Order: sequence, then structure tokens, then C-alpha cells
Amino acid sequence: MAKLKVGVLGATGMVGQNYVRLLENHPWFEVSFVAASEKSAGKKYADSVAGRWHMPTGIPNAVQGLMVEDANKVDKAVGRCDFVFSAMEMDKQVVRDLENEYAAAGIPVLSNSSAHRWTEDVPMIIPEINPQHLDIIPVQKKNHGWKKGFVVVKPNCSLQSYLTPVYALIKAGYDVDRMILTTLQAVSGAGYPGVASLDIVDNIIPYIGGEEEKSEKEPLKILGRIEGGKFVNSDSIRISAHCNRVPVVDGHTACVSVGFSGRKPALEEVLRIWREFRALPQELDLPSAPKQPIIYLPEANRPQPRKDRDADKAMAVSIGRLRQCNVFDIRFVGLSHNTVRGAAGGGILNAELAYKKKLL
Amino acid sequence: MAKLKVGVLGATGMVGQNYVRLLENHPWFEVSFVAASEKSAGKKYADSVAGRWHMPTGIPNAVQGLMVEDANKVDKAVGRCDFVFSAMEMDKQVVRDLENEYAAAGIPVLSNSSAHRWTEDVPMIIPEINPQHLDIIPVQKKNHGWKKGFVVVKPNCSLQSYLTPVYALIKAGYDVDRMILTTLQAVSGAGYPGVASLDIVDNIIPYIGGEEEKSEKEPLKILGRIEGGKFVNSDSIRISAHCNRVPVVDGHTACVSVGFSGRKPALEEVLRIWREFRALPQELDLPSAPKQPIIYLPEANRPQPRKDRDADKAMAVSIGRLRQCNVFDIRFVGLSHNTVRGAAGGGILNAELAYKKKLL
Amino acid sequence: MAKLKVGVLGATGMVGQNYVRLLENHPWFEVSFVAASEKSAGKKYADSVAGRWHMPTGIPNAVQGLMVEDANKVDKAVGRCDFVFSAMEMDKQVVRDLENEYAAAGIPVLSNSSAHRWTEDVPMIIPEINPQHLDIIPVQKKNHGWKKGFVVVKPNCSLQSYLTPVYALIKAGYDVDRMILTTLQAVSGAGYPGVASLDIVDNIIPYIGGEEEKSEKEPLKILGRIEGGKFVNSDSIRISAHCNRVPVVDGHTACVSVGFSGRKPALEEVLRIWREFRALPQELDLPSAPKQPIIYLPEANRPQPRKDRDADKAMAVSIGRLRQCNVFDIRFVGLSHNTVRGAAGGGILNAELAYKKKLL
Amino acid sequence: MAKLKVGVLGATGMVGQNYVRLLENHPWFEVSFVAASEKSAGKKYADSVAGRWHMPTGIPNAVQGLMVEDANKVDKAVGRCDFVFSAMEMDKQVVRDLENEYAAAGIPVLSNSSAHRWTEDVPMIIPEINPQHLDIIPVQKKNHGWKKGFVVVKPNCSLQSYLTPVYALIKAGYDVDRMILTTLQAVSGAGYPGVASLDIVDNIIPYIGGEEEKSEKEPLKILGRIEGGKFVNSDSIRISAHCNRVPVVDGHTACVSVGFSGRKPALEEVLRIWREFRALPQELDLPSAPKQPIIYLPEANRPQPRKDRDADKAMAVSIGRLRQCNVFDIRFVGLSHNTVRGAAGGGILNAELAYKKKLL
Repeated sequence: MAKLKVGVLGATGMVGQNYVRLLENHPWFEVSFVAASEKSAGKKYADSVAGRWHMPTGIPNAVQGLMVEDANKVDKAVGRCDFVFSAMEMDKQVVRDLENEYAAAGIPVLSNSSAHRWTEDVPMIIPEINPQHLDIIPVQKKNHGWKKGFVVVKPNCSLQSYLTPVYALIKAGYDVDRMILTTLQAVSGAGYPGVASLDIVDNIIPYIGGEEEKSEKEPLKILGRIEGGKFVNSDSIRISAHCNRVPVVDGHTACVSVGFSGRKPALEEVLRIWREFRALPQELDLPSAPKQPIIYLPEANRPQPRKDRDADKAMAVSIGRLRQCNVFDIRFVGLSHNTVRGAAGGGILNAELAYKKKLL
Repeated sequence: MAKLKVGVLGATGMVGQNYVRLLENHPWFEVSFVAASEKSAGKKYADSVAGRWHMPTGIPNAVQGLMVEDANKVDKAVGRCDFVFSAMEMDKQVVRDLENEYAAAGIPVLSNSSAHRWTEDVPMIIPEINPQHLDIIPVQKKNHGWKKGFVVVKPNCSLQSYLTPVYALIKAGYDVDRMILTTLQAVSGAGYPGVASLDIVDNIIPYIGGEEEKSEKEPLKILGRIEGGKFVNSDSIRISAHCNRVPVVDGHTACVSVGFSGRKPALEEVLRIWREFRALPQELDLPSAPKQPIIYLPEANRPQPRKDRDADKAMAVSIGRLRQCNVFDIRFVGLSHNTVRGAAGGGILNAELAYKKKLL
Repeated sequence: MAKLKVGVLGATGMVGQNYVRLLENHPWFEVSFVAASEKSAGKKYADSVAGRWHMPTGIPNAVQGLMVEDANKVDKAVGRCDFVFSAMEMDKQVVRDLENEYAAAGIPVLSNSSAHRWTEDVPMIIPEINPQHLDIIPVQKKNHGWKKGFVVVKPNCSLQSYLTPVYALIKAGYDVDRMILTTLQAVSGAGYPGVASLDIVDNIIPYIGGEEEKSEKEPLKILGRIEGGKFVNSDSIRISAHCNRVPVVDGHTACVSVGFSGRKPALEEVLRIWREFRALPQELDLPSAPKQPIIYLPEANRPQPRKDRDADKAMAVSIGRLRQCNVFDIRFVGLSHNTVRGAAGGGILNAELAYKKKLL
Repeated sequence: MAKLKVGVLGATGMVGQNYVRLLENHPWFEVSFVAASEKSAGKKYADSVAGRWHMPTGIPNAVQGLMVEDANKVDKAVGRCDFVFSAMEMDKQVVRDLENEYAAAGIPVLSNSSAHRWTEDVPMIIPEINPQHLDIIPVQKKNHGWKKGFVVVKPNCSLQSYLTPVYALIKAGYDVDRMILTTLQAVSGAGYPGVASLDIVDNIIPYIGGEEEKSEKEPLKILGRIEGGKFVNSDSIRISAHCNRVPVVDGHTACVSVGFSGRKPALEEVLRIWREFRALPQELDLPSAPKQPIIYLPEANRPQPRKDRDADKAMAVSIGRLRQCNVFDIRFVGLSHNTVRGAAGGGILNAELAYKKKLL
């Protein structure tokens, strides 16, 4: 089988580099096109990231020599890629317009950007939770008069550590109606240069601009439904998030208290639900899907970011410390790799799902 | 005025060193006696801490040459100190028995240990919150037949960052009935050698043995009352605590969500209450008391441990990020210095209070 | 005595903030004028540094309300300050020209900038080493036709940890002719935002742009002499420096191997020389001078930045680990506080020296 | 081919865990025997390391269920392993005696311990440098009357970052006669719990007990020769080492100045020598050998431990910053992974070499 040709928009940034890295040797996709801001355009990819390649492995050979294009010039991509990953770091309105332009040009867009997360006909997907939200794509295409192109987004990197385990309980029939959670987030989440070292050596920062709002609202769309060709948020759950930056390179941790409105599962039942949880990516055996989406660690002091973030290609969510909550019903600690599961890896899993659903 | 002569039990450990450091130049007290485990006994203090003095300033001259005594030999202290600070790190039953022995020998004990925190006639004091709990001392003395000695303890270091601001609201007439909080605690809280660097570089640990239980239960005694010569816990509040270790040297941070059972204060009202909060230590102008017990920082990203832990001699609680909570009523971030306000400094403030109340 | 009125140019940057902090309560000087870039001009100082005040203590009351001036408008300073500290972070040629303008306007300039370090009639001073280099000031004034103004600079922050102890040996008659040294430098040396956290968490950077050249060449001018109204570098010593950035907030450490061309001191002799070393700042009892410029720590594992950087108001150099070198003659570890001794504190000491020499 | 059965002595410690991890899926060897101290004996391996397994991947399935034996009982190993890796952390004399016992029992010992490094008939091997030192094995066997057993050791973990690149120059005919170097060593080098976090957060420690002596002397044996059945040290080179502990998890960095006694290579020549350097492990295509033993990174700020330590299975040495030295001739920065190349990985490479030389 010939691999699909893939473009990466914003290919020189941190998330873009992760796309380039994770797509090396992908069984279905190959990077054939890289684009970035105007000032990077016209250089070879290897030159454009010289001195700021932050990945643990080298630049893939097949990408080193690709000429970087100006991401604003959509026509450059036409004919050169079957779809694109968007990791552009620009003004949201500009990103929205550009992503639409790519879609209009017949190029599906799998986006990591927050620009289109609240567009009413754009699905925000975590493949283990709401793969059925891809059903809106025909509506979206029709709304815009697009033939082949469309836009799919993924949510913010902070959600992955707690939403999948909570969704597993909901899916098993337990109605979660409230959550209070505190995140301890890695510095890589802020990109590069991102957080200044003077702010994080011997320190934590109890604030990340916009992060709490995303952590509280995006789950409502993901847990919501399509009605009249639009997404309608879930109204059955309230979330309060406290987001902190900590001196950790990769891996977002969340301390989560959860309350149920109806019957409450015993702790053993929760463990069973998590252990047995499988979803569409596992059924379809998608190449980037973790074998077991939720891994429960029985040790008292786990999960820990440096030790557990890489579980199952950094795509699994590691969970620990399940116990009764004195105020709500249960509490636990969740962890996921923010730049893999929470960013480029999650985007690739979305693309694999779309491919299997014959959208690509 | 001649200064009171003070002994420090456990003087060579981290908390003991902080007592020695903070009592240098104290206007009322002077260290005249240091005791530790049997194996340190017989050495000069300076020699016994050589290579493991962790304070930012040098060993006070007046203490360097003191001979370290065996803390198990209570008679060594008799006649040499008017009272002692206890920072012994031993089996709890042993500490309890030893603290009783000192009290029986006529030497009041101001303890940092958790040994006596749940003894029914021992008060657990935060001077800004429950100074009236010292009223149990005559009962305690009578129970044991002690003439001059008694035991007073302070709570765990994790409480100071959130309990004083919450108490200020209670005192102002708002009934707090539930709290969910997550702490990000400094490595100094684990003593020395304490946390291994392999567990904390590029990492956090989402577990501290026994800490969540202390954080949840000790406030109930502090907010409780004396009844029939015993302490009765407050039953009006439930607390759920998630405790984490982070790569910070000093300063415990807490992210706190708070719910009220009756009327709820507006955010401006909360700020006014905190700004105007003063208590007995401030009225008595105790030497170690912060001028303003609760300092609210208006910047969006404060308090931060490295930048704010030293506020007002490291004895003030720094607060920030007051905002509505989506699930409870309000939420905020609190910070206090764990080895000063949360340990030796808090113990000294207890002693100053006891002195003014003519118990020493 | 009325205090001298002092201006701080570049007052909103990291070094400028340190000047403002360290001059609070100075016995001779008081900050009466603050200037920065055009975009900060017109704001109150407190507002201009809001959210980026990095000092451990609050903004001094007397400075909070000062209006920030545009440092490019020299006439604003005339009549409002007796001299200025320059900590401007701009293009070197621009700084050079501006510092000259201030001097031409009758305002002496004590500079932290590297702009004038190699100007042939500008002295680069470490007060314990080459206070006599101030003798060039009359020549400098004459060269420019300046009446009252002049320019004095201090060297790079990396030198303080090793040059004073080496100079003490030279002063005692031992001819040091070669040094190989490796520095481990704190992130505060790069200013704010400076080093990205992704570059320094679980990492070190073995390169600091321009730092090795400064570390190798500036000592030659400091150890040089005035000849024919110009500075002539010392040609008796060669230095090779390896400069690294490490995850430390403040405090530059240097591992130093030293060779002598003639007779070699015994280790005990070196210790005696360091212990007894005093210089003009100590003789004049300058307010910011450390009582003992070089403090030798006998413990095997000292000096350490977090534990020793604050020695004697952060103005002393802490030394340890003196031992024979297998290749040269002796080796040792030196440490000094880079933003105090190595920057603002060093600049203030220069001003105190100039004042005592009646230049201000 | 049936795999050789391998024992790991000290299998529960940090180095032992690395052996277990790195031998998973080894093409020639399989772990069939694990031994540790008496108190671990009798437990399953998975249980004996529960809560202190520090590897980034899980415990290999094949090892989880192995019963841990008492390493002092040599007869337990007889018949169960073809050779052993020794990573025992005990008194040196005890280790020496035990390693001899295993050899006497017919079991070759590939040791990571420092116990036998200076035994006159025990070779200390870096396979790229002195594979010919294995020629002493027949002498060693004869000295002891051993039939099949023998002892081979590897050097200290600090040497790998600088000795191979320096050896490459010697091999190319340039006589290195002096080196001054400073290491910045990772905390994993101290084992677990090892360095206390209070000593390393916002800090460095300019001292590692015994490390400088090892760094200075062990190269002399490695570069030495066999004469009269004993090792004679090289006397052509003098080394001075400054060893520091820094807040890095894995990866030792060294800043190195090198002098030549005879002709001096141009910098381009040095780069060519390093680029082209290959040795016996590469010729034999040993499974753990890096394809290119020395990787030169042209970026100004490399190598960096977090970014470069894993180069080529963490077995390559990464080099950068080659430049002229002001005092000696050249200088550079070297980096290698201390727990892989510098410990278990290096030991495995020794075993692979011994296997190809038909000693196992």
C-alpha cells in the first residue's frame, strides 16, 4: 500500500517537531510537505530547526531535506499532501481562516490548535471517547460547500490525564456530575522558549493563562452530542480546575476528586472498569493506539511523570492512588504525556481514526 | 529583663537547626541547652552538626560550643532550661513518654512532633486561630499531677497555607463546610536526607505518607472546642486533601476549593476579610508574629514558593488567585514557609503566646 | 550628612532591580531617579515592574512612586542625581555613547555594562584588586573635556569567584602564570526571561555566548597597569575558561587549576594568605565591603551555591577544596553571588570607593 | 543458537536493574539467575524491587518470577549461569573475595565494581581502547589455578566521556601528555537513594568522594601495557580532575583541556580522527556497540545531557565545542550516559567482546 502523503503546518515549532518525529516509520502516513511562518520558508527543514530541534531522536532523514514552505500559501500544499496536521502558533482568527482555506482547497485538516475548538460544526475528538462525533463531517462539508476537505481538532493537552478515566466510569453507567481537580503541568506544554528558568527552578507557578477555562469547558463538548447539525454541550457535569506549572520536562499530572449523582461504584468496581476499558482505537487496532488505554499502577506513590509518562509509546494514561474522597466520592491521580498523547500523538490517532472511517 | 533559658530537644535535626537559627537574637528567649540522640551526646554542638548544617546562616556563636546532651536523660535539662522545644524524630510512643517526662520534671514542652497531637488534653495551637485552647493547660496539669510542666503541640506543616485564610472567613461569620485541596510541598518537609534526588529531578511524587490524613483531621481539632476537659472536634467541616512532593526547597503551596453551608461572601468581601484579619499574636505584638497574617497578592501568577515564602520573616501566609469555584463557592492558592511558619517559627510563636499568658 | 542622590539607568531590568533593592537603606546613597527604555518611560516605577519584579524583598517604598524617565534623555537626569549606575541592556555602541553623554553632562557613571570595558581610558575595577586604576580618571576627563563626569566600569560577573583569590596569591609575591578553569553559572546571569526552562531542567548547557572570552581577557586589564594615560594589559598570565550554565538560581561556581612561574606556596601558606587577605575596601570600611573578602570553608564538599552564595551580604567570595593539582600547582573551588557581588553589589562597592576617593 | 545463561549479582540495586533491563531481548545472553544481599534472598525478583524499580521500562517478564538468591552463596550459581555480571555494593574486600570465589567455581565474572580494578592481573577494559588487555586472562587463570572462571572489570563511570576521544588522538599518533578536566556528573551515578534532594535542588556539589582519584588514575592502567604478567601503568600522561554533582538525572559531561608533547593536530584533523574512529567492537559488530563510537555535534551549545545522552542506544560518546585552548593545545566537551555506557551497558559490551574472543 502506498502511504498517504502528509503535510505538517507549523512544522518548526515544538508540536510540529513532535509530528515530524512521531510520523517517522508510520505504517500509513509519510511526511511529504512541511510549512511554517514566512521567515522559515525557503530553507531546508534541517536548517530551519538548527539549534532548536528539541526531540530526543535526530531529524528523520526523509524530512531533513524538505524545503519549508510558507504556511500562508495554501496552493503550495495542493497536490503534495493528502491531508495536513496543523500546529500553527498564530493569532486564532488567522489560524481559523487558514485551516478553512486548506479545507476549501480539498485538504483535510487534523488540528492541534485551539482555534476551531468551539466552532459549532467542528468535532473535538479523543478517539477513545467520542469517535462518533466524526459523524458531523458531512454536515460541516455541506455548510461550507467543501468537497473533500474538512477540519477536525483535538482538545487541550491538560485533559488527557483525567477525562478518559472519568469517561470510562460514565460509559459503565455511573453518572459523574462534579469534579474538582488540580494539575501539575510540564514546562514543555508552554512551547519553546516558553517558561523562563528563573520562574521554575526551586519554584512552581500556580497559574497558566487560559488553561483552567479549557480544562473545565472542553470536556463538556467532548461529552456532548450532535443536535440539529451542531454540537450541544453536556450539561450533566461541572468541573473546577486549578492549573499549575511545575519543574518537569514532559508529563501532566492531575489530582482528581469525583462525585456521582446516582449510584456510586465500589473502588474494586472502578479498578475493574479501568482495567477492562477498551474503545474504538483498540478495536480497530490503530497503529498509535495504546493496547490498554488506562494503566492502573498499584504502588502508593505512582504515577510519576518521569517514570510513567512513556507508558505504551507515551499514549496510555497512567492512573494511581484510587481512594475514597472525604467530600465527593472517589479520588485518584492521573498522568499523561502532554506532547505525545496530549498533542502530536493524539493528533495522529485522530488521523488514523479518520482514515479507518474512510474520511482521508 | 533576663531572657528565659530554652532547651532544644532534637537540636541536630532539620527542625532543631531551625529552632537554633531562629532563636538567635530572640528578645525573650536564649538557647542554653541542646539535646539529641545518644550518639550525638557528648560532642560540641558545632561538631555534631558538622557537614550537615543546612541553615542559610552560620551556627550562632552562643550555641556552637554547647555540649550536646542525650535527650533521653531528662535530669540533664533540670535547672538548665525554663522550657524546651521538642523536635525529636523518634518512635511516637517514645516521644510521647519523653515529652511527658520533661513535663513531669517541671519543664514545659512546646512540641513540633506529631506524637501528642491527638492526646485529648494536649492543645494543638495555631496562635492566630485557637489561642483559647491553652485554657486546657490547668486541666492537663491536674490530670498528670504536674506542677509547672505541660505539653503544647503545633500541627503539621501542611496546614498553615490554607487553614488561617479559611479560619478568617469562619471568624467573619461564613460557615465553611467543605474543602477540597491539593498541596505542592517542598522537599525540606521530609527532613534530611529525606527525598532522594532521583525521585524529584524532572519529577513530582503524588504521595506523602500520612500527610493527607493529617491535613484532613488536624484542622478539626484546631477548629474544635474544649468540653468536659477534653477536646471535641469540629463536625461542621469536611476536608479532602491530595498531597504532592515537588522540586522546591522551601514553601508549601495549596490549591483550595471552599464551599459554604449558609450565606456566601462576595469575592470583594473575602479580600476585605483577609486584608483586615488580625488576631491575638498581632494584638499582643508577639516578636515572631507577622504584622499582617494573611497577605493577598493581586498578580495573576502568585503566590510562588521561591518568591513569596519569606514574606514577613517567613511567618505570613501569602494568598492569591481568589476566584469563583465552578463546583464549590470560592477557590484560591495559599503558600507558607514550611520549616519556619510550619515548624520552628510556629513553635516559637506558640512559646511567645504561652509566655504572654504567663504559662512560662 | 545628606545622602548623595543616585540615578539608576536600566532600572527595570534584573540588574537595575538589584541596584534598587540593594540601595534601600544605604548610608550614603539614595535612589532619586530611575530611567529605562522609552516604552517604560512615563509610568510609576512600581507599575513598570509589575509582574516582573524578581527580587526576594518588595519594591522599596521610596522608589515605588518615582516616575520612570527615558534613559535616552540625559537632560532629565541633570540636577536630579549626583551620579548614576548604568545597567542598560542595549546595543553596545548605543550604551557607550549614552554613558559618555551622561559624563559630558557632569554626571559620573558607574557602569555594569560591558560597553566601555575595553575603552582605553576607562578603568575596570574590582575594589579589592585594582583600586589604583581610578587614578586614570583625571586623564579620562581631560581626554573628553569633562569637568565632573567620568565613566568607571566593573568586569563580567563570572570573574569574581576566582580572580580575587588568585590576586591574593599574586599580591603575596607568588607569580601565577597560567590558569585553566571551568565555571558552573547560575541562570540569573542570563537575565529575564533568559534561559528557557526546557534547556535547563534535567540538563546543563556547556556554552554561554561571549562568556569565555570575557573570563579570559578581562583579568588581564584588571591585573594590568596605566602607561602613557592608557591601560596596558598584564602579559604574565594565560587563562583558559570553560563556561557552563547549570540549574542554579544564583551563584557562580568555578573549578580552578593554577600554575606558578617561580616559587610555589605550600597549601598552608595559601590558606594563610587567603585568611589574612584584606584590601582597600576593608581598610576604608566601605559599607558594602565584606569584612573578610575571601572565606575558606574547610568542609570537603563546599562551597555550594545555595548554601554559601549569601555569605557576608552576598559580597564575600567563598572558597574550598584547596589541594595540589596533578598538572599545575594548586586547584580550588570558588563561588560568588553573580547578581550581587558580580553585578549591582560590585557596582555599589565601586561607587563607595569613588566616593571615598572624593570623585563623587 | 542457544543463548548463554547469565547471572546478575547485586541485581536489585541501580546498576543491577540496568543489567536486567538492558539484557532483555539480548541476542546472545539471557538472565537466568539473580542474586543480592541476604535480606532480599528468597523473594521473587519483582517483589524484591517493588517500590524501588527505577528503570524507564517495566521489569522484563522473564526475570519477574526468578527467585533472588543470596549472592554470598556461590554454589547456588553453579550450573545455572555461564557467567555473571557483578554489581554488588559491599565492602571492597568482601566483593574481591566473592568475585574470586565465583571465578574459582568456574564462573567468569564481568564486574562493574571497583574492587578488582587495581588487582595486578585483572584487566580493566573499555572495548574501544584496550581489548588486547584480555590477553592477561590465561595468566590470571594460571595464577589462581582457575580452569574456566576469571575476572574482568570496567572502569569508573566518569571516564567514558573523555577517555575515548583522547585515546582516538593517541591512536592516531598524537602524544597527549596532560589533561585538566572538570566533570558535571548526574545524580544517578550515586545510586539510590544517593544524593539528597536538599543538596541538589537549586545547587551543585563540587565534590564526589573518591571520584577525582579514579578519574585521574584509572586511565593510566587502561592506557598501560602488560609486562611480566602484570599491568604497568602508562607514565606518559598526567591528569587533573575536578568532579562535580549537578541536578541532572543521567549523563556525565566533561570540560576537557588537552596538551600534546610532540606535534599537535589541527582542529580539522582532530574532527577527522574522531569522525573516522572505529575500533574492535565496531569491527566485530558487537550487538551493544555504537555504530560510531564518537559523535561530534557541530552546534555551539552541545552536547547537553538530556538531549544527547541516549545517542546510539546510549552507548556513543557525544562531543562538541572543539576549540583551541589558551593554555594547553585543544579543548572540548564530552558526554556519555553514566548508567548505560558508563555502567551496565559497558559491562555488557565487555561480555560481548569476551564472548567473541571465546573466553565465555
